[in-house]
Amino acid sequence: MLKVGLLGAGRIAGVHAPAITSHPESALAAVSDYFPENAEKLAAQYGSVARATDEIIADPEIDAVLIATSTDTHSDLIEAATAAGKAVLCEKPVDLSLERALACQVAVAKTGRSVMIGFNRRFDPSFEALKGALEAGEIGKPELLTLTSFDPAPPPASYIKVSGGLFRDMMIHDFDMANFLMGEAPVRISAVGASLVDPEIGEAGDVDTAAVTLTYADGRIAVIKNSRRAAFGYDQRIELLGSTGMLEAENVLENTVVKSTASGVTTAKPMHFFLERYMPAYRAEWDAFVMAVENGTDFPVTLDDGVAALAMAEAATRSHQTGAPVELSDV
Amino acid sequence: MLKVGLLGAGRIAGVHAPAITSHPESALAAVSDYFPENAEKLAAQYGSVARATDEIIADPEIDAVLIATSTDTHSDLIEAATAAGKAVLCEKPVDLSLERALACQVAVAKTGRSVMIGFNRRFDPSFEALKGALEAGEIGKPELLTLTSFDPAPPPASYIKVSGGLFRDMMIHDFDMANFLMGEAPVRISAVGASLVDPEIGEAGDVDTAAVTLTYADGRIAVIKNSRRAAFGYDQRIELLGSTGMLEAENVLENTVVKSTASGVTTAKPMHFFLERYMPAYRAEWDAFVMAVENGTDFPVTLDDGVAALAMAEAATRSHQTGAPVELSDV
Amino acid sequence: MLKVGLLGAGRIAGVHAPAITSHPESALAAVSDYFPENAEKLAAQYGSVARATDEIIADPEIDAVLIATSTDTHSDLIEAATAAGKAVLCEKPVDLSLERALACQVAVAKTGRSVMIGFNRRFDPSFEALKGALEAGEIGKPELLTLTSFDPAPPPASYIKVSGGLFRDMMIHDFDMANFLMGEAPVRISAVGASLVDPEIGEAGDVDTAAVTLTYADGRIAVIKNSRRAAFGYDQRIELLGSTGMLEAENVLENTVVKSTASGVTTAKPMHFFLERYMPAYRAEWDAFVMAVENGTDFPVTLDDGVAALAMAEAATRSHQTGAPVELSDV
Amino acid sequence: MLKVGLLGAGRIAGVHAPAITSHPESALAAVSDYFPENAEKLAAQYGSVARATDEIIADPEIDAVLIATSTDTHSDLIEAATAAGKAVLCEKPVDLSLERALACQVAVAKTGRSVMIGFNRRFDPSFEALKGALEAGEIGKPELLTLTSFDPAPPPASYIKVSGGLFRDMMIHDFDMANFLMGEAPVRISAVGASLVDPEIGEAGDVDTAAVTLTYADGRIAVIKNSRRAAFGYDQRIELLGSTGMLEAENVLENTVVKSTASGVTTAKPMHFFLERYMPAYRAEWDAFVMAVENGTDFPVTLDDGVAALAMAEAATRSHQTGAPVELSDV
Repeated sequence: MLKVGLLGAGRIAGVHAPAITSHPESALAAVSDYFPENAEKLAAQYGSVARATDEIIADPEIDAVLIATSTDTHSDLIEAATAAGKAVLCEKPVDLSLERALACQVAVAKTGRSVMIGFNRRFDPSFEALKGALEAGEIGKPELLTLTSFDPAPPPASYIKVSGGLFRDMMIHDFDMANFLMGEAPVRISAVGASLVDPEIGEAGDVDTAAVTLTYADGRIAVIKNSRRAAFGYDQRIELLGSTGMLEAENVLENTVVKSTASGVTTAKPMHFFLERYMPAYRAEWDAFVMAVENGTDFPVTLDDGVAALAMAEAATRSHQTGAPVELSDV
Repeated sequence: MLKVGLLGAGRIAGVHAPAITSHPESALAAVSDYFPENAEKLAAQYGSVARATDEIIADPEIDAVLIATSTDTHSDLIEAATAAGKAVLCEKPVDLSLERALACQVAVAKTGRSVMIGFNRRFDPSFEALKGALEAGEIGKPELLTLTSFDPAPPPASYIKVSGGLFRDMMIHDFDMANFLMGEAPVRISAVGASLVDPEIGEAGDVDTAAVTLTYADGRIAVIKNSRRAAFGYDQRIELLGSTGMLEAENVLENTVVKSTASGVTTAKPMHFFLERYMPAYRAEWDAFVMAVENGTDFPVTLDDGVAALAMAEAATRSHQTGAPVELSDV
Repeated sequence: MLKVGLLGAGRIAGVHAPAITSHPESALAAVSDYFPENAEKLAAQYGSVARATDEIIADPEIDAVLIATSTDTHSDLIEAATAAGKAVLCEKPVDLSLERALACQVAVAKTGRSVMIGFNRRFDPSFEALKGALEAGEIGKPELLTLTSFDPAPPPASYIKVSGGLFRDMMIHDFDMANFLMGEAPVRISAVGASLVDPEIGEAGDVDTAAVTLTYADGRIAVIKNSRRAAFGYDQRIELLGSTGMLEAENVLENTVVKSTASGVTTAKPMHFFLERYMPAYRAEWDAFVMAVENGTDFPVTLDDGVAALAMAEAATRSHQTGAPVELSDV
Repeated sequence: MLKVGLLGAGRIAGVHAPAITSHPESALAAVSDYFPENAEKLAAQYGSVARATDEIIADPEIDAVLIATSTDTHSDLIEAATAAGKAVLCEKPVDLSLERALACQVAVAKTGRSVMIGFNRRFDPSFEALKGALEAGEIGKPELLTLTSFDPAPPPASYIKVSGGLFRDMMIHDFDMANFLMGEAPVRISAVGASLVDPEIGEAGDVDTAAVTLTYADGRIAVIKNSRRAAFGYDQRIELLGSTGMLEAENVLENTVVKSTASGVTTAKPMHFFLERYMPAYRAEWDAFVMAVENGTDFPVTLDDGVAALAMAEAATRSHQTGAPVELSDV
């Protein structure tokens, strides 16, 4: 039974807490938060206790920590927890600063431990099935990838200001997915973006609509499209053209009802909220973490993956700013 | 080059005329109609001439006739044309009277000629592909068939009165399709029906909504559902469960556009009008007729098929009237 | 907090146990089973205790029982539990004997209590959405219903022998769904069936393939199709034609991946196993039970609904045996 | 009745000839070809005569010419035919040389006549319906466009050498479609491409896989993806995200059959061959040409549109060669 300390008691911690408690081989030993009352509330809800973050990390009875705090604390907590010998699952991104993430990578390497990064989409049943079909050779060699990620509505401008920008905050999931599916990092990144959805986003120096092209060493291509607004819901699709076929992952709809009237034939919309859409993925992610810790096997997503995606976000940001392609080796 | 006389100049003749003229191996030699001015108009449109029906049948220069007149003249014209040695394609149904159709069958048999009946749906590209997959063994043995045929809107009550009723007029297509797919006639037919769409249809002694169950000698089952009204268009579907799988033919939509908005995800409706929906089928039907005549091979749909479907319509009508299943051998 | 006794520790009890324990307002107080070791095992897994059925029913500390025992004990346990003042959720069917179920109905009525019957499909998110659209008037008046329920593979013949037959065991779900959607019971039932899938089923006196037609007082029609075998998985669909449109509920697929190769375009199959397919429905069913008990409101599915469906199964069985339609008022 | 001279008797002329002859208001007056025997063969097939190109253009009895010759002759023939007062429909592209196309534009302007360019995809029923929905405001303002065009298989390397390269030969259709849907030309074009499908294409200095990003003056974005190989057929899709929704045009499939077996659920593939896929578009294009000529109204696609698409192809080619974005105003 893995005894787990949950660092952070916000929205995403609220997703992880039931995953931890309902898993037959993990228990929620303690919860911490910057605001202790939040930790107490979440702990009470799941039959656990609130403690200070330091205490949790220092407690030898606790086997693992799940870091679900604000992004600016991730690197510090990863370093502290690995130094204390904990198994660590940390929410993405590793950091908003590539430099800091690289330093964290060095520090963790010294501990000889590894860290799992919460790129939850890798664990989505449909995306996993797509990856499985690809690895089974069902479309030959993957050559042209298209990732589409549209949010239902933009976050408030206040969030945008501390988010690190669309490429680090939102598209980082797609960068990791591209690495997951293409099996390597690209060599060159070219980004365009604009503020079309909300002028306040533009005033905050960010974009809300973007398209990025990744070029691989052998000429293969990936295209990523992001928008902060899709009136119809949370649009999350993959299309991968290979030498002998194509794989697509379509949206998960709210239900399977089809209505046919004089106005047309209508189906349900994609699931609107990311927590609902990716709930099975969060559960599977936790399963994978527990299984790897228990079996002593490698994590399926590592700190290196987190740093790689962050480097791509950095390159995309620069490309958007300069208007020219950026070599990934230059970041 | 097959020289063709087109008997009838109404709506369905207007579908056949361009099929005849655009086919590289058939020519429209003459057109007749009960109202000569209709024949003249259609003939002019397609560079042909209007003549009397008798003359056309008597003319040794004419190789084939396509009978597209009103149903009550079909049997007489089939007999006259086969007696005159013509190749004959006759629109469905053979007759509204099973007795008359059986007599026609006998008369034609004496001429030693065969007649093709225009069950156009057998030639629909999707239904043909379904039949092909079935014959290729892709779902094993067919066991449970469901045919769905909903018209967009009921015909006027005046038409209903001379139509022979829903089972003979509308469901006859489905009876033929069941025979086509199940490979044999059923042994028993059980029908229920009601007038739910238009009270005038009920007052005319007919139904506008019906479900019929066919039972085969070895226990296999087919279900046919008809409605005279589908607000969303012309609904024409097949579902066939077999021992190792299922085949379905879905509706043909007006276009492939998908619209996603806050109200839902909407596609186009099924093609609304039967002539538009089955245009490729009418073309393929004519191709099949010309090819069989030219090659001297058997027609793919024969007078026997037309009589078989009519007998099923007769049995369904009786079952609906009596409320009890009817053995097909009793009609 | 509702203290719940779970009667039965078999497969379906294994679905209910986590629903009870993970619900914020219910707790699993005790588990019983014919084989005490099964009860102990399930109780241990969910932090509960094993007790005898009698004890559980007699314990005033226990508020509710969930009856998930073998069908032949349902009526007795319903009577005992309601007599003891418990809130009761009982798995379908109420009984295999309509007579016994009617007696149970009388006995329960004397206690002044009501019982919820576990027709889980009513709580399926897609079927609920379909019902909601119907009640919102989105297709006008429902006129022609088609229910399709195909199991992936037949149960062993040993099960068939004690099942009560396809109409009572499998189609009973569809009878309830028809009542749910059409808003009333039919007046007449006509059934055909055959043993096409497994000869042993026929030798056991049952059918594995069936089609049933329901006729309503005003002429409306419902068609139910069942097969014990669908090579592609668990096929569960609804189609409801109304005066101004049509509603369909399509299958829930294993994932959203589409693969396009030279062989065709392939999607995932329907979810194969009923527990996986209806897991959200079982959860929602439990929510509805708890909410009704806590609020003192009517159960959404009652003993009357259970008896009504059973009467329809009885009528269908008779119709299949006699080959003639059966008036529901005659059963 | 429009008397039409068809210049060219190759594959695409074989599509136009029946469109001309079956249209009620146009007649095929003459056919010419570089190889006179080809012209004779096509003319005979459609009841017309073969003549020299010069003669056709000089004949005052001929009202219109359809230019379906090899690309290098387009500009010369457009100039000659407009100078002779003919109504002109010319196959795309105007020319492989932007300079020559611009000179042609000037020459035609002097005649005061206008020319229709055969961007047939604008007339595809699904793409037209998408455009109609866009103009009806059904998705608000279009912001992010994705065009996907994959050919089933690459042409022979011999063709590649004279094609002008993927951007001018294949993607030119997408450039025109982007202009059609976004309602203006972009300001900047960024292209990446590679030879992944056929090494001979790379050796010929061309690419077979490419992704191009178009940026518009107000920041809007379009992404175009091309591949010379899709194992599953001819993939032609549009996705357009707008401020209040999204429009997609999906592939046209060979038929509507769905097969469900233990291996999965399979539908037909997209129509494989462009002539079959776009046959209705070619018919509608001819209708539009005849209608504009007869009514004296503007052509729906003009020489300016042809030149605009060519300029984009030129910019994309340069961007791919230099690795940097290209301002459209610089070409």
